[in-house]
Amino acid sequence: MSRHGIVTLLTDFGTADWYVAAMKGAILSVCPRAVLVDISHEIPANDILTGAMILAQAAPHFPPGTLHVVVVDPGVGTERKILVAGFGRQTFLFPDNGVITFVAESMALESIVSVRDPRFMAAGEISATFQGRDVFAPVAGHILNGLDIARLGPRPDTYKTLDLPIPARRGEGLFAQVIHVDRFGNLISNISPRDIAQFQSPPGGLRVRCAGRDIGPIQATYAMVDPGQPVALVNSMGLLEVGVNHGRACDVLSAGLGAEIVVAESPSPPR
Amino acid sequence: MSRHGIVTLLTDFGTADWYVAAMKGAILSVCPRAVLVDISHEIPANDILTGAMILAQAAPHFPPGTLHVVVVDPGVGTERKILVAGFGRQTFLFPDNGVITFVAESMALESIVSVRDPRFMAAGEISATFQGRDVFAPVAGHILNGLDIARLGPRPDTYKTLDLPIPARRGEGLFAQVIHVDRFGNLISNISPRDIAQFQSPPGGLRVRCAGRDIGPIQATYAMVDPGQPVALVNSMGLLEVGVNHGRACDVLSAGLGAEIVVAESPSPPR
Amino acid sequence: MSRHGIVTLLTDFGTADWYVAAMKGAILSVCPRAVLVDISHEIPANDILTGAMILAQAAPHFPPGTLHVVVVDPGVGTERKILVAGFGRQTFLFPDNGVITFVAESMALESIVSVRDPRFMAAGEISATFQGRDVFAPVAGHILNGLDIARLGPRPDTYKTLDLPIPARRGEGLFAQVIHVDRFGNLISNISPRDIAQFQSPPGGLRVRCAGRDIGPIQATYAMVDPGQPVALVNSMGLLEVGVNHGRACDVLSAGLGAEIVVAESPSPPR
Repeated sequence: MSRHGIVTLLTDFGTADWYVAAMKGAILSVCPRAVLVDISHEIPANDILTGAMILAQAAPHFPPGTLHVVVVDPGVGTERKILVAGFGRQTFLFPDNGVITFVAESMALESIVSVRDPRFMAAGEISATFQGRDVFAPVAGHILNGLDIARLGPRPDTYKTLDLPIPARRGEGLFAQVIHVDRFGNLISNISPRDIAQFQSPPGGLRVRCAGRDIGPIQATYAMVDPGQPVALVNSMGLLEVGVNHGRACDVLSAGLGAEIVVAESPSPPR
Repeated sequence: MSRHGIVTLLTDFGTADWYVAAMKGAILSVCPRAVLVDISHEIPANDILTGAMILAQAAPHFPPGTLHVVVVDPGVGTERKILVAGFGRQTFLFPDNGVITFVAESMALESIVSVRDPRFMAAGEISATFQGRDVFAPVAGHILNGLDIARLGPRPDTYKTLDLPIPARRGEGLFAQVIHVDRFGNLISNISPRDIAQFQSPPGGLRVRCAGRDIGPIQATYAMVDPGQPVALVNSMGLLEVGVNHGRACDVLSAGLGAEIVVAESPSPPR
Repeated sequence: MSRHGIVTLLTDFGTADWYVAAMKGAILSVCPRAVLVDISHEIPANDILTGAMILAQAAPHFPPGTLHVVVVDPGVGTERKILVAGFGRQTFLFPDNGVITFVAESMALESIVSVRDPRFMAAGEISATFQGRDVFAPVAGHILNGLDIARLGPRPDTYKTLDLPIPARRGEGLFAQVIHVDRFGNLISNISPRDIAQFQSPPGGLRVRCAGRDIGPIQATYAMVDPGQPVALVNSMGLLEVGVNHGRACDVLSAGLGAEIVVAESPSPPR
């Protein structure tokens, strides 16, 4: 498909064992010119939400035509589908368990198929426990070799996204929650650009409250506030985030997973 | 040798330090087109047995012509030999300390030499403590560049394999041990395909007992038993393994390194 | 610049998050043929000294024309400069915070510029907190594509090096300190080749004392002493180091960061 042959890997396999290497070998056995790039193999085991976030943060920075292979797959060996989808100008090969959620929020779906045709999987017996090696890897190799993804299988009726807590409009305020705390202590909410667009004011005219504290309007960057001060901004996933310039918002605000984040047009957010 | 230039690295160096990077730089300095793939650098320090297992699990999945460089080498700087061997259609560069044991069990030896010729090592002084950089890496680069391995040195009389506990035939049973517990809790034994072939029955006609519990016949996959149930199978290294479908055999069976595994033809394994 | 396109990365980002992958994607988006090699991403956060040491240990082993990108950058978003410099036949892209110290000690400066021209950075808004992705990565891609580094910005008046404790000459002795303990327990001092050259005797005619114990003359390799015995040598960074053949000097000598190391011409170092 792509001339550059770039393929990324995102798994919860860790790097102490042979699993990632076996997948890489299996990709290279089908497509020896593949250019392998690790996104991370340290997703907590079976943590689809974290995998979904890291995928959406990393993928947009890769060149058009990059293939992203995601194996965070607690349902391996069950009837869950394996999907290949084009979002934006990139291709994703992933288990249909919601790990595509934030990519699907932020990039346009171009095409999608369900992986069915065994001719593009490992010859012989397919391991029921290591489909990363026996299904994902050879399918990835064939896609890198230029396979038309329509040949992999039929178009699925739908694909799964994570049931995240939905921001709720109550009066003048949009009430939402912290769904992720990143390594810098930033508090990432479930408030999307669509949610923010429902307000009449532009982002700079809104006000944000987090964990009971007024954070002020949505800013463009951390540097819009003094060091040590909290700031709300729309992060590179398109989600509203509360950080602290040169600091850790989770510590400064004593807030974590599930903490309340409120957006409103009023000069002072509703209580 | 290979057109694809793929070379894997397996070490106990960790990734926090400069050791792996120095080796990669030294390989690329000899062969700038080398395609570097990490198997793992997290082998416990000097743990030859674990290195041998991970090597044998990962290597077979790489394309023919891949070079595998192994530096799990507690004897660095001593008189232990450094060997290059072709097994199957792949090439291995490794210290002669038994780390090749499971590769040698499962792939056919094609050729073997002892690395002697200093022209293919680092110019100047060879570090006595970092032969990974000064010997293994440049030799790897030359092999990738197409060097006939016969030029590296003479054929050794033999090569070392690990003295694993040997399964013992007593009456109708083959008595063996768990020699490795992998990250999924699977119990891997020292029972090879040769051991299993000595029975008159095919694998499916044998019965396995592990840590005093009847596991049943040798199956093709984990999925042949219900979730949570133990199962015996021949793993991708060719060793008899006891796992649990969707579970951890080491926990379910309360068994670990050294636990007894018995194979027998009788419907119920001997006690 | 280089035909081989090799670029190394050295950061304190860890590998559990998306940061390294986003940088890699951003490099590949500018230069899809880039050959990415990780030096380490496990530098302790903001530890410029450790980053400087690991950089200087790894970089010299890479082929001429390699680009080394260093993002150990506690001053991200401040007025600290970002520099590109040629040392020896290699190129370094790094924050001007002293992380280049040991490279500058051991390799000859060929050229240096300050990165200013926004045309070679990310289009649109530059993140104030993630310049690794928005400045370092695209600049690296352009350098790999052959950009004349003189186009990046002006030549700076100077560049920063770490204020390491300076070895002090007192009488016949040069009194210095352990500034790093590596993973093998070696005690690395702040004594450079220039310091050693100030003595009349060659290195082999000097004597070293570490943590109150006579270590003997400066040797060529660890193997010059018996196993378990301490030895002084000039390491691959060009710094005087005290190690133990097949042992851990920090344990054998009960010494660590800040321990005294003394070099003298007298047969027995001064007390």
